[in-house]
Amino acid sequence: MLVADAKTWTAALVVIGDEILSGRTQDKNVAQLATWLNDQGIRLSEVRVVPDDSERIGEAVNALRAKNDYLFTTGGIGPTHDDITVDAVAAAFGVPVVVHPEARQILVDYYRDRPGGLTDARLRMARTPEGAELLRNPYSGAPGIRIGNVYILAGVPSIAASMLEALTGSLEGGRPVVSVTIGARAAESDVADLLRETEAAHPGVAIGSYPFFRDGGYGSNFVIRSEDGELARTTGDDLTERLKAKGYDPVEGGI
Amino acid sequence: MLVADAKTWTAALVVIGDEILSGRTQDKNVAQLATWLNDQGIRLSEVRVVPDDSERIGEAVNALRAKNDYLFTTGGIGPTHDDITVDAVAAAFGVPVVVHPEARQILVDYYRDRPGGLTDARLRMARTPEGAELLRNPYSGAPGIRIGNVYILAGVPSIAASMLEALTGSLEGGRPVVSVTIGARAAESDVADLLRETEAAHPGVAIGSYPFFRDGGYGSNFVIRSEDGELARTTGDDLTERLKAKGYDPVEGGI
Repeated sequence: MLVADAKTWTAALVVIGDEILSGRTQDKNVAQLATWLNDQGIRLSEVRVVPDDSERIGEAVNALRAKNDYLFTTGGIGPTHDDITVDAVAAAFGVPVVVHPEARQILVDYYRDRPGGLTDARLRMARTPEGAELLRNPYSGAPGIRIGNVYILAGVPSIAASMLEALTGSLEGGRPVVSVTIGARAAESDVADLLRETEAAHPGVAIGSYPFFRDGGYGSNFVIRSEDGELARTTGDDLTERLKAKGYDPVEGGI
Repeated sequence: MLVADAKTWTAALVVIGDEILSGRTQDKNVAQLATWLNDQGIRLSEVRVVPDDSERIGEAVNALRAKNDYLFTTGGIGPTHDDITVDAVAAAFGVPVVVHPEARQILVDYYRDRPGGLTDARLRMARTPEGAELLRNPYSGAPGIRIGNVYILAGVPSIAASMLEALTGSLEGGRPVVSVTIGARAAESDVADLLRETEAAHPGVAIGSYPFFRDGGYGSNFVIRSEDGELARTTGDDLTERLKAKGYDPVEGGI
């Protein structure tokens, strides 16, 4: 049973990067963070993609950190001149940027035996908003940053993944959303009524319909989502029966 | 030469879909729209991804259509109960939803010889905000919608592409941004100063730095963007020379 007053924990994401808005780079952090958050029992409620512009980053960060339990950012924390996320987030919090002693030490250790050593440019990656904590980055040394409810991650998806991995289990959340997928060789417009009726018959679920055209034929996947796993499965069984009654051959898990 | 008062035309995108925020579906419309917009001389200035929630869609639409020359939406215009974009945009404009006679006729013709025919569910796709025009969809019949400066596209990337194709050349824009890419087997932190200096020496360009780790080695691609193509190319040549002087072997077009 759903507890009526169970809190839904939410997070938002600000993707920082001209390269996403120019179409040069295909973002992968939205899907990656969404999946990870769901495992933590936290729902991704909004994403904003903004350019490498301090004011625009600050606006998005301040708007979304106030409305959500957690806010993540990706991008703009490397060693070059276009990496301005730390400065923009510090400005959004109204605090100065400092060199974080622990981050500095991590970089000293990381670059000790590496070519080029610890240059001024690399030391940029030890700068954090004052009062911030570090997020471990087992993958490539330079840490992520937490300040308040804001989690500043790298833009490179494998490095962001490494930081999320290190955070796993440390954020308070609620119940993960369970999803059950039923596929059928049905044009979604032919089963629209059936879907609406099924959703209405099971309060507490949301049913999404995702059409496809594949192997020369139309079909759809119907995704039932709920924080109540039992309810999601019951609804899936009901939807399967209703589709069979209309002559379809539904596939659990989707097509 | 850059004309000092040349207007920069901007567009924003609202991606509508629980399936993106749940991590189930990898968005492809951001990169697709960004690339298409650039060819029209319009810059994508912000993206918001919001859930299938009428109020949240309306908030994002109203915030972004006021701040940009154009606003696009993707998703939520199919025949099922979770397709609420038309209703949400109509509410955001404060106008009723009507059945658009031309859209109805398109669907009548499209489904005349197709199995199932024109059902009530399919007729949902003829609903538009009052006062809207249609965007042709050569791919699958059901049209996109324009109201004011808002362009409502399908969520399925191939259908959205078909609608954009039909719009090509019809939107007023400025000069397309030209980008020149130079790649080098350089860790970006080793060339951070060089990049900053190159950018500072060529007012009117922005240089982005995109590191990679590939084939067992580090490298970076440096992307020079400007509305002045000649300036972008001159800056690229200068960056190439500066990289060579530091002992790198830069590759035009990127690595």
